[in-house]
Amino acid sequence: MDEELAKPVTDDEIFRAHEGGKLDIGVPRPISDPRTLAIAYTPGVAKVSRAIAEDPAVARTHTWTHRLVAVVSDGTAVLGLGDIGAAASLPVMEGKSALFKTFGGLNSIPLVLNTTDVDEIVETLVRLRPSFGAVNLEDVSAPRCFELEAKLIEALDCPVMHDDQHGTAVVVLAALRGAATYTGRQLKDLRVVIAGAGSSGIACAKILILAGVGEVTLLDSRGIIHEGRDGLNKYKAEMAKITNAGGLRGGIAEALRGADVFLGLSSSKVPAELIATMAPNASVFALSNPDPEIHPDEARQYAAVVATGRSDFPNQINNVSAFPGIFRGALDAGATRITENMKLAAAEAIHAVALDELDADHIMPSALDPRVAPEVAQAVAVAAVADGVAPKPA
Amino acid sequence: MDEELAKPVTDDEIFRAHEGGKLDIGVPRPISDPRTLAIAYTPGVAKVSRAIAEDPAVARTHTWTHRLVAVVSDGTAVLGLGDIGAAASLPVMEGKSALFKTFGGLNSIPLVLNTTDVDEIVETLVRLRPSFGAVNLEDVSAPRCFELEAKLIEALDCPVMHDDQHGTAVVVLAALRGAATYTGRQLKDLRVVIAGAGSSGIACAKILILAGVGEVTLLDSRGIIHEGRDGLNKYKAEMAKITNAGGLRGGIAEALRGADVFLGLSSSKVPAELIATMAPNASVFALSNPDPEIHPDEARQYAAVVATGRSDFPNQINNVSAFPGIFRGALDAGATRITENMKLAAAEAIHAVALDELDADHIMPSALDPRVAPEVAQAVAVAAVADGVAPKPA
Repeated sequence: MDEELAKPVTDDEIFRAHEGGKLDIGVPRPISDPRTLAIAYTPGVAKVSRAIAEDPAVARTHTWTHRLVAVVSDGTAVLGLGDIGAAASLPVMEGKSALFKTFGGLNSIPLVLNTTDVDEIVETLVRLRPSFGAVNLEDVSAPRCFELEAKLIEALDCPVMHDDQHGTAVVVLAALRGAATYTGRQLKDLRVVIAGAGSSGIACAKILILAGVGEVTLLDSRGIIHEGRDGLNKYKAEMAKITNAGGLRGGIAEALRGADVFLGLSSSKVPAELIATMAPNASVFALSNPDPEIHPDEARQYAAVVATGRSDFPNQINNVSAFPGIFRGALDAGATRITENMKLAAAEAIHAVALDELDADHIMPSALDPRVAPEVAQAVAVAAVADGVAPKPA
Repeated sequence: MDEELAKPVTDDEIFRAHEGGKLDIGVPRPISDPRTLAIAYTPGVAKVSRAIAEDPAVARTHTWTHRLVAVVSDGTAVLGLGDIGAAASLPVMEGKSALFKTFGGLNSIPLVLNTTDVDEIVETLVRLRPSFGAVNLEDVSAPRCFELEAKLIEALDCPVMHDDQHGTAVVVLAALRGAATYTGRQLKDLRVVIAGAGSSGIACAKILILAGVGEVTLLDSRGIIHEGRDGLNKYKAEMAKITNAGGLRGGIAEALRGADVFLGLSSSKVPAELIATMAPNASVFALSNPDPEIHPDEARQYAAVVATGRSDFPNQINNVSAFPGIFRGALDAGATRITENMKLAAAEAIHAVALDELDADHIMPSALDPRVAPEVAQAVAVAAVADGVAPKPA
């Protein structure tokens, strides 16, 4: 892998690999003669249409929609590129759809929208509801993404998840479990500092608290988020209530002193001197891409565990460990939504795979490990039934 | 073919062939290692997204959307089943998408809508515009389909075609050219009687007139449509002006007397006695499915050429001869719309393939003839450039 990656990826190579797009429609049962035409199309197809008209549940078993994830974006927060618009977001969405297929065995299509109005996006997907089985929301800017996800979950009777929030939160929790296991700690004994209070920072803070992490300190570009701070939007104000139990004030220096874990989800650099002030055996997750908040080699001088979002350093933390299995499990179970317990179960399942060969450089399974998605899917499906959002298996 | 079809298609066979749906997403360039992941997804994909943000034309060459046809329906006029709703229309739309791939080599996805409001459908597709390259409108009830198609063509800068209208019109014109060639007539000398003034009847009447057919008489369930008849909607009133130059009054009996061609697009039966009153060497296209307006064997006693929509009789007239090639040609050319000349060119191209072995039982190429779509595509692309709706090839 290192040798492969040592050969730099050229622009030419990237553009050639995107020519004509990255997805393709297949016809699993060929239409090659009058008989197969009569079965797949008229007159045979009328029987299936009539069956669905009589019993809508037949659409789940006899159309492709039940296992089809719509990857939806308005292009307002695309990677590190910002608000570049729907059309420019397409290569990312096609990549996401390709990953759903590759790791989750699910069909997926990008649906990108020329509107950034939350209610219009919801309305559009409500109208298209019979066309898909689940919605993966992607690269929508904060704080709009919180309102959009909440309204979609309310409006649609199918799994909906904003991956930048919850996919990230799930893999971060899995990695944190790995780091805690390696350093011999309990989640309840950890103080975690999260730099970045956008969609992923807030979602990570929430899932870590839910999973039992002892204390979470959340920072935005103005410093530690705490109760009473001026100018917090309603999402940050809510976070001020449930984080920072120690009542810290100040910036990243004040936050990191004595902390057990640093989780970087903004592009701000963190000097090594500050990492040196963390607790012994600290963990550093510097997830900014392509430039981590601190170079892993530097962080490694003071931290027991260092992870990044990059595939060319140890401990890559990548959403692809989570979303294919989460949606696969939800759809396998026939779930109508994705609950907190389903996300927690996904993180546990990823961590369980990591336990096989856990060490300082392997707190997570590889992003490409084919064992992960099936394990996640199974755990998520079980949690969906337990939470009552999916029917009990017959 | 006859032997194959002699074995009746069972319901069980039909339902088994629809399990899990009829479409599948493929990933033509596998994502199998860190390098291919870095090229197809982050960080590599950012280069392609940025390139599209700077030059929207890059989306045409480096995403799948330019060759992607959205098969759009609201489920209001599905086959002969009527208004069965969006979900129940899905098997038909999946079949259509499968045919786009099989015959046109185009990717295609069904987008079915839970609204029947024309403006809401237009609005939805305008919002989704960056997600596809063309719209095939399908199984939308008349007369709403006329308004919907017109508004979509106005609102979208891409090819839009209601196949029930124009796909049918193109294959009917191709078949009529075949019948005229076989019976040694010119289109200008023909009087054509069309039974059925829904979406396909009106579109057929228009294209036949445009192609130079001498006289067209159009009937709805109340008889011959003529100027001054009470209660005509605006679409039929318009047809009254351009059809029935002979000023006929009455029903199918009055219309058929001395006519050269009968085109059945309603489910009303036509007795053989009336076919007997047609001109010598008449043609009968009894296209109702699955039950033609008159049984072909019976019609054959009085007509020189008999065609149906069925694959188990000679001269099947099936839209699949037209739509894959029309959209392929329009997209190949980069056309922004589908003009009348492009439709006429499609019919000519289908007919040109038929000329190779034209006889009374082969006025059309087989619906499954793989030569047809490429010929249609080429002719349509040339017509698009000639009409100025596509750029001149470099």
